Amino acid sequence: MKVRCYTVADARFERSPDQQGEVFTANLVDERHDAPVTIGYGRYAPGHGLTETMAVDDVMILLEGSLSITANGTTTQVAPGGIVHMPKGEEVTIVAGEDGALTAYVTHPHWREAR
Amino acid sequence: MKVRCYTVADARFERSPDQQGEVFTANLVDERHDAPVTIGYGRYAPGHGLTETMAVDDVMILLEGSLSITANGTTTQVAPGGIVHMPKGEEVTIVAGEDGALTAYVTHPHWREAR
Repeated sequence: MKVRCYTVADARFERSPDQQGEVFTANLVDERHDAPVTIGYGRYAPGHGLTETMAVDDVMILLEGSLSITANGTTTQVAPGGIVHMPKGEEVTIVAGEDGALTAYVTHPHWREAR
Repeated sequence: MKVRCYTVADARFERSPDQQGEVFTANLVDERHDAPVTIGYGRYAPGHGLTETMAVDDVMILLEGSLSITANGTTTQVAPGGIVHMPKGEEVTIVAGEDGALTAYVTHPHWREAR
């Protein structure tokens, strides 16, 4: 693979699987490419989110809006520039604030293959 | 490992190795932890940067400022929210703009062990 630069304009958002909320993902690099990580953008409508047991290690960087992250009985508010590390096997609840949220994510291995 | 949320206030910046510029890295998760990725924040002073042949796959997300990325004879300007994927084995030149740059990064495997 070559060095590549992406913006959110490159993202083709699809509804995140196995949930009915307004939570969307857009893989830019994944199992179709020769790289060990999946890279993408995520988008959450205001107040929407999901609860998930992680099938992979997922690193989420908040770019716009706000998120509340609940895990192990603790809730943390995340502001833009915040990084959330969700290790494989952990359960986490992610809920967007009143302005929704735009995220970047990197997973290892590829999340779509690990489901 | 547990789910963890980080902000730049958690970062302890150190000069990036093998270069004299004002380029700093701050690992939050790395080979000291039980995770397959290194996660951290990076900081570039205005006009500073580096040229590197990637020892790992490195995903850099620009949080503040601007960066120019040169690889394979092409230079791309990156704005906040932009994602740069630098695959293992590729050479890349990263230079910050006049306001410097704050980045988040995720590498696989751990960049400090792969050097």
